[in-house]
Amino acid sequence: MSTLETNHGELEPVAGNGLLHRRVFLTGSAALLGASGLGLLTARPAAAAPPPELPEWMKAPGAGMSGYGRRSRFEDDVQRSVGSAPGTTGSGASRTPLEKLSGMITPNGLHFERHHSGIPDIDPAQHRLLIHGLVARPLIFSMEALHRYPMVSRIQFLECSGNSRPNLSDEPPGGSCGEIHGMVSCSEWAGIPLGALLEEAGVAPEGQWLLMEGADAAAMTRSVPMAKAMDDALLALYQNGEALRPEQGYPLRLFLPGWEGNISVKWLRRIKVTREPTMTRDETSKYTDLLPSGESLLFTFPMGVKSVITSPSAGLAMQGPGFYEVSGLAWSGAGSIRRVEISADGGQSWAEAALSDPVLSKALTRFRMAWRWNGSPAVLLSRATDSTGAVQPTRAALIAEKGSQVSYHNHAIQAWQIAADNEVTNVYV
Amino acid sequence: MSTLETNHGELEPVAGNGLLHRRVFLTGSAALLGASGLGLLTARPAAAAPPPELPEWMKAPGAGMSGYGRRSRFEDDVQRSVGSAPGTTGSGASRTPLEKLSGMITPNGLHFERHHSGIPDIDPAQHRLLIHGLVARPLIFSMEALHRYPMVSRIQFLECSGNSRPNLSDEPPGGSCGEIHGMVSCSEWAGIPLGALLEEAGVAPEGQWLLMEGADAAAMTRSVPMAKAMDDALLALYQNGEALRPEQGYPLRLFLPGWEGNISVKWLRRIKVTREPTMTRDETSKYTDLLPSGESLLFTFPMGVKSVITSPSAGLAMQGPGFYEVSGLAWSGAGSIRRVEISADGGQSWAEAALSDPVLSKALTRFRMAWRWNGSPAVLLSRATDSTGAVQPTRAALIAEKGSQVSYHNHAIQAWQIAADNEVTNVYV
Repeated sequence: MSTLETNHGELEPVAGNGLLHRRVFLTGSAALLGASGLGLLTARPAAAAPPPELPEWMKAPGAGMSGYGRRSRFEDDVQRSVGSAPGTTGSGASRTPLEKLSGMITPNGLHFERHHSGIPDIDPAQHRLLIHGLVARPLIFSMEALHRYPMVSRIQFLECSGNSRPNLSDEPPGGSCGEIHGMVSCSEWAGIPLGALLEEAGVAPEGQWLLMEGADAAAMTRSVPMAKAMDDALLALYQNGEALRPEQGYPLRLFLPGWEGNISVKWLRRIKVTREPTMTRDETSKYTDLLPSGESLLFTFPMGVKSVITSPSAGLAMQGPGFYEVSGLAWSGAGSIRRVEISADGGQSWAEAALSDPVLSKALTRFRMAWRWNGSPAVLLSRATDSTGAVQPTRAALIAEKGSQVSYHNHAIQAWQIAADNEVTNVYV
Repeated sequence: MSTLETNHGELEPVAGNGLLHRRVFLTGSAALLGASGLGLLTARPAAAAPPPELPEWMKAPGAGMSGYGRRSRFEDDVQRSVGSAPGTTGSGASRTPLEKLSGMITPNGLHFERHHSGIPDIDPAQHRLLIHGLVARPLIFSMEALHRYPMVSRIQFLECSGNSRPNLSDEPPGGSCGEIHGMVSCSEWAGIPLGALLEEAGVAPEGQWLLMEGADAAAMTRSVPMAKAMDDALLALYQNGEALRPEQGYPLRLFLPGWEGNISVKWLRRIKVTREPTMTRDETSKYTDLLPSGESLLFTFPMGVKSVITSPSAGLAMQGPGFYEVSGLAWSGAGSIRRVEISADGGQSWAEAALSDPVLSKALTRFRMAWRWNGSPAVLLSRATDSTGAVQPTRAALIAEKGSQVSYHNHAIQAWQIAADNEVTNVYV
């Protein structure tokens, strides 16, 4: 049963400062950590015979069943971090606490939010979707009608283009991993391929763009190229199995896989087929980047290849030298994740992390690596490569390319500094 | 842009009573349904110019952000159906409303429940896991210690072995799809490979079974073969990204992929390594099946290959002749789903459904098929085949094999009868 004799080579470091081979995470190999003398033994020896004393909660029947469950009261501190624009409650963002989660799916209660005028309380019986403009047959859909259409479902990430903006400031900001990078989440989205409804309306040949309007008080409005609409655009009705949450666009949102979150217009009520982009407030005054040349980047839709180590990360103190799992998330708007490399010495040497199945296109991918920390200062980095061969850039390279005024689409490498006193902090390298 | 001219063959029936080719669900092909004259057009024509009148919820800012989100008040009727044993609130089951969900993931609030003495309210700071018995080093783990171990994550189903028992009664029962088949759910589970902890404790060669004990008031206790423990057994800490829900075993449960749910002991507090199965109350008085020979089936762990059409299904009335999506779930305890076939004529002819990615081992798989209902009586069936080649049996074949006293592991084909008056009911065929 023991694989100790055969596989000990996997416990030899594969890169500087104690990184171990990713095979440690394959079935069977994980078992070797147990008796390996890695400093993994974190249990207390027990007297062989008696089970532990009966806890209070075994002495009387527990709580009953329920129609819709809640989490444990002992998990109440796992919260999105909310940041509202001054003077508002509903304009701003809340961020997923990435450092407190595991796996690739984000539970619906913790999916990040970004609203421009709060969350409308929409009655689905009254909600309508209009398709008009350059079409043969302008159409209005009730929600009941939409539920008759054929659907598809996919596990995919959504990321705000303003995610990770704090790391573009001159000094490395404080805050947790989620507070810096938590405007990304991943769900199974189910809904109607947008192309089916556009075919039904009959798009005119000159109709090359679509105006998408939300039913919030800001009437959030963006322009979408027709090619994306006919490729993989979804009118999403479900998120992780159940109806969309109100803050994710209930009862209906646009979902454009791999593109900046803002263009996946929530609470969708109107699609207008146009010749050109409409140049709305939400795509001209915002969601653009001023370059050193004085020109602005506009319609920068796809999200770049990116990764972040969620554990260890800022604010999660180490517990002294020994074995640690280095774990994090990687994703790309261009396809699937091919590889994630980890460095424990600030980028001098790298080794490949294990990717947890399933590795899906335009989805978060969980990576994991075994690390034997010797207690000395260390700098942890992760670097993702996607299926197109694109490699996550350093912060310096990103700023050298786009200038210091860049504000969106920061997909640069994150560095976490591990100090001898167990503190973990955000650093630029 | 239109694919109508090239692909019209996909809209010809591929089996009796109006079943259409699964390619209808591939990207692009779905678009053809729009202008196909299938009776899909469910929208109202709209005047070309004006957008719909502004709804009330666009006239003032909406609700603010929150630390942990809730679903819309308009979805309150989507509930698990709770059935408690007489005189108790916490002994019994609640079932997932499969007919109201989409995709493959079950949201945590709607995962089915099965408890033997309610849900304990466990403080993770006080909870301990003991490993003892035939081991070199008996060990006690705190939750903090367990969180240091390397983890894996996987999307996999959990099904109670008593699921679908109502369909073993002499007459087809009433109730919804979820009320009959809803003791199956699917989540991303993350946790520690059990083998790592067993290696640390040092299992004696004669230790071939494990006693697993839960920390509920029933001290739910089952015996697990060592081979499964060292294969793919997980000590699960997370479910769909966040900590396990209380009703799923917070803070720690055993998870044995593909096996009957009861053996994935929740609120796990004790693992004892033994020579033989312990023959506990929960595996002798229950979770066994009496055969016609007078012998009982015992330790029938793997769940059989199975599927069920969730829409249309009992209680979801049709809306007259026209286009429908036939959609459902398939799964197998032995591996992945290779194929799901649909019949609309009670089993005289069959055609293959489209499977939604990802198709994963021991996970729910969503299938979909396009159906043009002509308004005449019809009987819808689904039949799954798994990666080992095993085929879902008919109800008659299952009863012929196991006898009329069988109570667990009903994985027979479900038949839904569609009547000309739009009613959908459960029938035996």
